[in-house]
Amino acid sequence: MTVKVTFLPGQKEIEVVSGIDLLKAAAQAGVMVEGNCGGKGTCGKCKVRLVSGPAENPTAGEKKHLSEKELAAGWVLACQRPVWEDVTVEVIGQKDAYGRKTDLASAVGAVELNTCVEKTFLKLKAPTIEDQKADYERVIESLSLSDERTNLKVLSNLAQVLRRSHFEVTPVMIDGKLISVEEGDTTNRKFGMVFDIGTTTVVGYLLDLNSGSVIATSALTNSQNVFGADVISRINHAINDKNGLAELQKKVLEAMNEIISHLYQKADVKGEEVYETVVVGNTTMSHLFWGIDPSYLAPAPFIPVFTRTLEAEARELGLNMHPYGRVLILPNIAGYVGSDTVGVMLATHINNRKGYTVAVDIGTNGEVALAGEGRILTCSTAAGPAFEGAQIKNGMRAADGAIEAVYIDGGEVQIVVIGKSKPKGICGSGLIDAVAQMLKAGIIDSSGRFTDPEDADCLLDPKLKTRIIKGNNGFEFILVPADLSATGENIVVSQKDIRELQLGKGAIHAGIQVLMQIMGITPKDLSEILLAGAFGNYIKKESALAIGLFPAIPLDRIISVGNAAGDGAKLALLSKKERAIAQDLARKAEHVELSSRLDFQNEFVNALGFPE
Amino acid sequence: MTVKVTFLPGQKEIEVVSGIDLLKAAAQAGVMVEGNCGGKGTCGKCKVRLVSGPAENPTAGEKKHLSEKELAAGWVLACQRPVWEDVTVEVIGQKDAYGRKTDLASAVGAVELNTCVEKTFLKLKAPTIEDQKADYERVIESLSLSDERTNLKVLSNLAQVLRRSHFEVTPVMIDGKLISVEEGDTTNRKFGMVFDIGTTTVVGYLLDLNSGSVIATSALTNSQNVFGADVISRINHAINDKNGLAELQKKVLEAMNEIISHLYQKADVKGEEVYETVVVGNTTMSHLFWGIDPSYLAPAPFIPVFTRTLEAEARELGLNMHPYGRVLILPNIAGYVGSDTVGVMLATHINNRKGYTVAVDIGTNGEVALAGEGRILTCSTAAGPAFEGAQIKNGMRAADGAIEAVYIDGGEVQIVVIGKSKPKGICGSGLIDAVAQMLKAGIIDSSGRFTDPEDADCLLDPKLKTRIIKGNNGFEFILVPADLSATGENIVVSQKDIRELQLGKGAIHAGIQVLMQIMGITPKDLSEILLAGAFGNYIKKESALAIGLFPAIPLDRIISVGNAAGDGAKLALLSKKERAIAQDLARKAEHVELSSRLDFQNEFVNALGFPE
Repeated sequence: MTVKVTFLPGQKEIEVVSGIDLLKAAAQAGVMVEGNCGGKGTCGKCKVRLVSGPAENPTAGEKKHLSEKELAAGWVLACQRPVWEDVTVEVIGQKDAYGRKTDLASAVGAVELNTCVEKTFLKLKAPTIEDQKADYERVIESLSLSDERTNLKVLSNLAQVLRRSHFEVTPVMIDGKLISVEEGDTTNRKFGMVFDIGTTTVVGYLLDLNSGSVIATSALTNSQNVFGADVISRINHAINDKNGLAELQKKVLEAMNEIISHLYQKADVKGEEVYETVVVGNTTMSHLFWGIDPSYLAPAPFIPVFTRTLEAEARELGLNMHPYGRVLILPNIAGYVGSDTVGVMLATHINNRKGYTVAVDIGTNGEVALAGEGRILTCSTAAGPAFEGAQIKNGMRAADGAIEAVYIDGGEVQIVVIGKSKPKGICGSGLIDAVAQMLKAGIIDSSGRFTDPEDADCLLDPKLKTRIIKGNNGFEFILVPADLSATGENIVVSQKDIRELQLGKGAIHAGIQVLMQIMGITPKDLSEILLAGAFGNYIKKESALAIGLFPAIPLDRIISVGNAAGDGAKLALLSKKERAIAQDLARKAEHVELSSRLDFQNEFVNALGFPE
Repeated sequence: MTVKVTFLPGQKEIEVVSGIDLLKAAAQAGVMVEGNCGGKGTCGKCKVRLVSGPAENPTAGEKKHLSEKELAAGWVLACQRPVWEDVTVEVIGQKDAYGRKTDLASAVGAVELNTCVEKTFLKLKAPTIEDQKADYERVIESLSLSDERTNLKVLSNLAQVLRRSHFEVTPVMIDGKLISVEEGDTTNRKFGMVFDIGTTTVVGYLLDLNSGSVIATSALTNSQNVFGADVISRINHAINDKNGLAELQKKVLEAMNEIISHLYQKADVKGEEVYETVVVGNTTMSHLFWGIDPSYLAPAPFIPVFTRTLEAEARELGLNMHPYGRVLILPNIAGYVGSDTVGVMLATHINNRKGYTVAVDIGTNGEVALAGEGRILTCSTAAGPAFEGAQIKNGMRAADGAIEAVYIDGGEVQIVVIGKSKPKGICGSGLIDAVAQMLKAGIIDSSGRFTDPEDADCLLDPKLKTRIIKGNNGFEFILVPADLSATGENIVVSQKDIRELQLGKGAIHAGIQVLMQIMGITPKDLSEILLAGAFGNYIKKESALAIGLFPAIPLDRIISVGNAAGDGAKLALLSKKERAIAQDLARKAEHVELSSRLDFQNEFVNALGFPE
C-alpha cells in the first residue's frame, strides 16, 4: 500500500510505501532534509512541520529537540514519523547557501507555483496550398500571447524548426511573450535561477520551475573584492577609474557565470533550458550588476539611479542561460536599502504578520524594516565593519577557524570554533558573544570600559585577571592564548574592538528606535524581531540582547529567518503573485533617511552603552 | 501684413508677406515644389492643390497645364497664385525617389501628424536629503509611460546626464517607452526614416517628425543583386549557401547604411536624432532584411515565416540611427504579397474609396489588390521579367538611354529616350508602348504574330516593311537602326519579346479578372485602376489598355499613384492612426492563391491575345 507525501514549498509529491518515515520519503522525493544521526532521533536536525497541525505523541527525541510551542505548531523530527496516510509536510529552514542549517528559515510557507515561464506542447497542422498561414502565425494562433513581440532569433530559423520537428514544437513564453520555439515536447524541462549578490559573497540557486524545488545551490566570493571589501570602495573604483564600472560589472557577472556552470553541472541542466533569473542585492550591487553608474550613491544625498524592478534579456548581460530569457532584479527602496531587503520583506511577508515586526539584516550596513498596521518603514544604519569581523584586532569572517561563540563561567573561558581547525580569530557573532560574556563576568562595565585588573577593588576571578593585558591601545582580553591559537599569537578582544561594536550596535538600536517612534510604538508593541542573513543565523540571541543590539524584548520574539533575501527572490521566481507583492512592498515602504535626523543622533548616543 | 500658409501633408505652417506666390512660400517653408521655369507658368511643374476647392480664374499657364477636372479639384500652379489670405495647400506628387516627377502621387491627402516618437523637455528639481527619489523615478514621474521598461543604456549614465545638464533634460519615448534621455532641450530635433526595399533598388527617405516633411531622399541598388536579380535567386542563395542568409541580410543593411549616410549628410542630421524607421518591401526582401530564413517562400505552398508587423531595436540590425530606436516593417499578406503592397493599400486608402478599386504594382511579380464594399482581395501574378526589361532582346532597366516611349505614325517611328544619351535599349514601359503602336500600325496582329512584310497582301507602309527583319527566332521590328543607337546595333522588338509581354500582361489581366469574379463584379464596376511603383508612373495608359494589360475601362479611371509603397510607409511613420490602418488592411486582406486555381488558368489563356 502506498501513501502520498507532499512537500512544501514547491508542492513536490511522492508516493511511498506506507510506514516509511518522513526522512526517507524526503530522500526519495529529492527534498533535502538533514539527518546526521541516521534516523536515531538524537541529532534533531531533521525538523519539518506537519501542515495538518500539532505533533501528537512526540517521541523522546522530539521532546528533547523541540519546544512545546514547536510541537504544538506541528514541528516533528522527520526520522521519528512513519507515514501511514497522505500527509503534507513543510520543509523550511533546512539548509542555507553555505550548507549550514539555519535556525528557522523564512516564515513563508507553501508558495503556489505560478511562474512567468510557460511551455506548451503543440501539434500543428502542416501548411498546404489551401492553408498558407505563415509559420509564426501558425504557432502563435495556438497560444495566448499578451505581448505579441518576439525576437528575431525565434523567427530566423523557425521555418526549419517546424519542419525538422514535423510541426510538433514547444513554444516558450515569458509573461505571454514568445522567446523560443523548441523542437518536440520539452515541457518537462523548465528551469530558473535566483541570485543573491552580496558585497562579499554571491549565492546562486537553480530551481526546477515545474516543481518549484531548488535543485542546486552554489556560492562564490564576489570577485569585485579585488577593488575593495565594501560598497564605498567599489563605488570609488567606478568613479575614479574610466573603466571601473565596466570592470566591476564584468567581475560580478564572471562570478555568476562560474556559479552557473557549477549549478548546471550539479543538476545536469543546459543553459538554454533556464528561462528566468531573479536577482537580489544591495543597491550598490544592483547598480554594478546592470552596469549602472553608482557614483551618486556614495555622497549625500545618496541618490540611486533606479529603485524599481529592472529587467533585461540574458544576452544583454552575457549571463549563461537562454539568451532571450529574462533577468530581473527585485526593486530597491533607497540608496542603502536594496532589493535584498525587499527579498527579506517578501520572504517574511512582513506586512502580513501579527502586530508590529522588525526585520534586520546586519552587515556593514544594518538595514531595518518595521512593519505594522499596513505601514512599512525602512532605514539603513551605518553599522560599520565590526559585525563582519573587519577592523577588529583579531577579527575575521565567519569561516573555518573563527570563534563563533564564547562562554565565560567562573574563571574559565570556553570557545566554539567554526570547522575543525585551531582558532584563528573571531567573527562578528563571536565578538557579540564574547562581549556579552565579558559584560556578564564584569570584565567590562556597562559603559564598555575595561575593569582594571590592577585595581584594588577589582573582584574578578584571578584566572580572568591574568587574561586582561595591556595592549598598544588600552586593555585587551585574551580569548585564546598564543600557544592554543592557529596564529601562534593571542586572540584578544581589545578596548577598541568593544568601541567598534558599541558604535555598530548603537546605530542599529537607534535606527530601530527611530522607526518605532515614527510608527508611534514602543518595544513592548513589537511582536517579533526577524534576523535575516548569515549573521542573523549564527548570532546568539541572548548575547544580542545582552549587548543591547535590539530593544529589550522577550527572547522568544527574536527569530532568525536565514537567507531570507534569497528566499524572497525564490518566491518571486516561482510565483507571479509573490512578485507583485514584492513590488507592492517596495512601493509601500517609507524610507527614513537617518543621517539628517536629530532624533537619530540622540538615540544613537543613548544606545552606545550596554544595558545594565 | 502677413498671411498663414499651411502645407499638407505634414501641416507645415509659415507666415509670409501677403501677395507673394505659393511657390515662394513653399520655398520659405522648406517644402519642395519644383519650379523649373522660374515662376513663368510655362513648365507646369509646380502643381499643388488648394484644399479649399476649385481653382478660380485659372491663368493661361494653368489652363495649359491642368485639365478642367484638375482645376475643379483645386489644382493650381503654385507660381501663378499670390497669397492674399490664409490658405491650406496640399503638396503631393512632387518628386519621387528618382528625382522624377510622378504623374499623380498617392491619393491620400493630409496626414494628421501623430508619431510614436515623443520628446518632452523637463526641468527637474535636483534631489536633496529630504527628496531622495532615484534619478530614473525622478525622470519618469514627469512622463506618462505606457511601457515602463527601458534599456540599460539609458540608465547606465543617467546620473551623469542629469547632473551635467543641471537636471534639464529631454526624454525620448517611443510609444510610451523611454529610449533615451538627452541633455538640455532637444525637442526640435526629432527624425525618422522610411525605406522601400525593392529587389532591385533600395530607396530611403529622411523625415522631420516635427513637421512631417521629407527632408532628404536617397536611393541605391540593392547590393543583394550580386546573388541574382530576382527573389528566387536570392532565396536559392539562402538555401544553398551556409552563410547565404547572413550575407543577404548584410548586403541590404549595407546598402541601407550607405543611403542613411547620404541622408544624414544632405540634411545635417545625426544618427542619434533618428528614432524610428518604417520599412516596406516584398515578402522575400522583408525576410532577408530581418535575417529570417526565406527557404519556404520559393516552393509551393509558398509559406512565409511571418506576415505580421515585426519590430526590433536598431542596434539589433546595426542600422545607423539611435541604437534603441525602433525599426519596424509593415505587415505582409502572403508569400508574394508583401508590406510594399500594404504600403500601396495604405497610401491610397484603398478600402475607403468610392466603388471598387484595383491597385496594381507591376514588376517581376504583379501584385494586385481589389477593394470594395468593405472587402479586400489580393493576389500575386507571375508577371515575369518583361516589365522590368529583362529577358527582352534589347531590354534594359528604365535608366539613361532606355527608350520609354514609341510613336509610329504613317511610316515614321519616333522614340523618347530617358536622359540625354543615344538609345541603348528599351525598358518595360517602352516595350508596352512599342507593342501598342506596332499593334495599331498592323506590324503585329491581335494574336501577337508579326505581319510578314514579304506577304503579298501586306498593307504596311514600305518604310515600316523595311524595319521588319528576320532574326534568329522569327521576325524583329527595328525601333532604332544600328547607326543611330548607342550600341552600334539595331534596337529591336522581337517576336519572342512580344510573347514574353503577352505572358506577363496575360497573368496580370487574368489575376484582376479572378479577383473581380470572386468579388462578383465586372470591369464596368471598377471606379479606378491605381498603378503603383516606378513602372506605373511611366507607363502610357493608352498603351497599357491597347495591349490589354488591364480590363477595358475608360482611360481616365487609370491613375498612377507613384511610389505609393513608400508613401504608405511615410504615413505609417507619421501617424499612429495610419499605422493602425495598415495593420487593419493587412488583416482584412483575403489572399487568393492563383497557382492552384482552374479559373485563373482559363482567364490566363483568354488574356494572352491583344484586344481587337
